[in-house]
Amino acid sequence: MTSSAPNGFGTLYGIGVGPGDPELLTLKAHRLLLSTPVVAFLAPNEGESFARRIVAPYLDGAGKEEILVRMPMRADRLPSHEVYDRTSGKLAAHLKAGRDVAFLCQGDPFFYGSFMYLYSRMADDFRVEVVPGVSSIMASGASMGAALASRNDTLTVLPGPLPAEELETRLAAADAAVIIKVGNHFEKIRDILAASGLLSQSRYIECATLESERILSLEEVDPGQVPYFSMILVHKRGDAWKI
Amino acid sequence: MTSSAPNGFGTLYGIGVGPGDPELLTLKAHRLLLSTPVVAFLAPNEGESFARRIVAPYLDGAGKEEILVRMPMRADRLPSHEVYDRTSGKLAAHLKAGRDVAFLCQGDPFFYGSFMYLYSRMADDFRVEVVPGVSSIMASGASMGAALASRNDTLTVLPGPLPAEELETRLAAADAAVIIKVGNHFEKIRDILAASGLLSQSRYIECATLESERILSLEEVDPGQVPYFSMILVHKRGDAWKI
Repeated sequence: MTSSAPNGFGTLYGIGVGPGDPELLTLKAHRLLLSTPVVAFLAPNEGESFARRIVAPYLDGAGKEEILVRMPMRADRLPSHEVYDRTSGKLAAHLKAGRDVAFLCQGDPFFYGSFMYLYSRMADDFRVEVVPGVSSIMASGASMGAALASRNDTLTVLPGPLPAEELETRLAAADAAVIIKVGNHFEKIRDILAASGLLSQSRYIECATLESERILSLEEVDPGQVPYFSMILVHKRGDAWKI
Repeated sequence: MTSSAPNGFGTLYGIGVGPGDPELLTLKAHRLLLSTPVVAFLAPNEGESFARRIVAPYLDGAGKEEILVRMPMRADRLPSHEVYDRTSGKLAAHLKAGRDVAFLCQGDPFFYGSFMYLYSRMADDFRVEVVPGVSSIMASGASMGAALASRNDTLTVLPGPLPAEELETRLAAADAAVIIKVGNHFEKIRDILAASGLLSQSRYIECATLESERILSLEEVDPGQVPYFSMILVHKRGDAWKI
C-alpha cells in the first residue's frame, strides 16, 4: 500500500526483513535499506533488536541514523500506545525534513506485526509503503521439509496465548494449523495436542533459518527453554511430513 | 530443509519467487537463480509460465538450460502424477551429472505449492533445499494497507473451491480469513459473505504487486473476469482496514 502525502516529504517504508537469515530479505527490502538515511526498529526493554540483528550485515558501519525504540514485548500486553505516539512523532520529523525512513519488521509487517500501529498513526499524513517479507510460517515449512497446506486444505494460524478451550476447539476443526507465539504457552499446547491425539502429526521449530534453528518432536522439547520465536506445525494428514 | 544426497550430485532447489514483483525475490533466490545452470518451471497447457515471467529480468538472455513443464492447472483436478514422474526423471539426470537445478515456485514453495510433488519424489535420493518466498497473502495485506491479523486473532486460509456450506461454517468461526484460489468461485463466495453480513469487511485483490494489480470492494467485481490469482481478505473487526 502506498498512501499519498505532500510533495517534498520523505516516505516511510515498513520493511519485512524475513524470519532470520539475512539472505531472506527481498531485493526490494535490501535496496531500500541501503538507500534510506534513517532506519528505525523495535527492541525489548532490555537486549538487542531481532529485526536489527537480521540486517546487521547490511547496516553495520553504514553510518545511517538509527532509531531504537524500546518496547515491552510481552505477548499478553496491549501495545504501548504512548511509545507509538512518541515514535511516530520522531519519524514524522524526519519525513517532514524530506528524509525517507525504513522501519524494520521481522517476518512480514502485516502478519501479526506491530507496524500497523505506526501505519495507522501516519498513513493519513505521509506516504507510507509496506514491503512484504518472508514470514516465519513459510520459513518453518521450508526448514521442516513439510508443506504447510496443499490442495483444498484449510490452514489455521493460532496464537499460543489463546485459552486452552479455544485452541482445542479450533484445532479440532482445522485440516492444518500453525501455532505461533508458543513461548511459555508450550505445556498448555502440548497437553491439548496430546489429548487430541495429534502429537505425532505435530512438529516444533525454534529460530527458523538462524544458525540456532532446532526442529523437534514435542516430546523432545524442554518446556522451560521455549523461546518466543518458536512455533508448532500440525497437519491432520500425518503423511504431510513426508508429503 | 536440506536433505542429504551422494557426493558429486547436484542440488535441487525449490525456490519461492514471490507474488509477482521481480523485486520481491529474496537475495537467496536471486543468488541461486544466477548460479544454477538448469532452471525448471511449470506452465499451463497453453500460455506462459507465471513463475518464469516473474524472474524474466534475471533469466532472459542468461543462456541457462530451461525446462518447461506443461501441466493442467485446474484447481479441482488431482495433480498429474505422470507429469511429476516424468519431470523428476528429467531433473534427476541433471542432478546425477552434478548440475544444480532451480525449480521456480510462484509465492512460497510449500504454501499450497506444487513443489511438494517433486520434493516427495526426490528428497530421499538427492539433496533438496526449499527456499521460502514471499506469499501472495502477505503481499495482498501490504498492497491493501491492511493487517492480515494481529494480537491474538486467528487467521484462517480457505481455498475458494471448498463447498459453500464448509466456507460458510469456517467463515463464521474465523476472526480473519484469506480466501485463496477465488477464480470462478467468486459468485459463490460473494453470496456467502453477503448472507453472513461480511461484505463491508471484505476486500478483493487480483494480481497483487503486478502492474495489473486491482483492489476492489466485492460489489465492484465482475464475476466473469476473476483470474485464478485473486483473493479475498476478510476481517471481522471492520476497522482493521484502517488498522
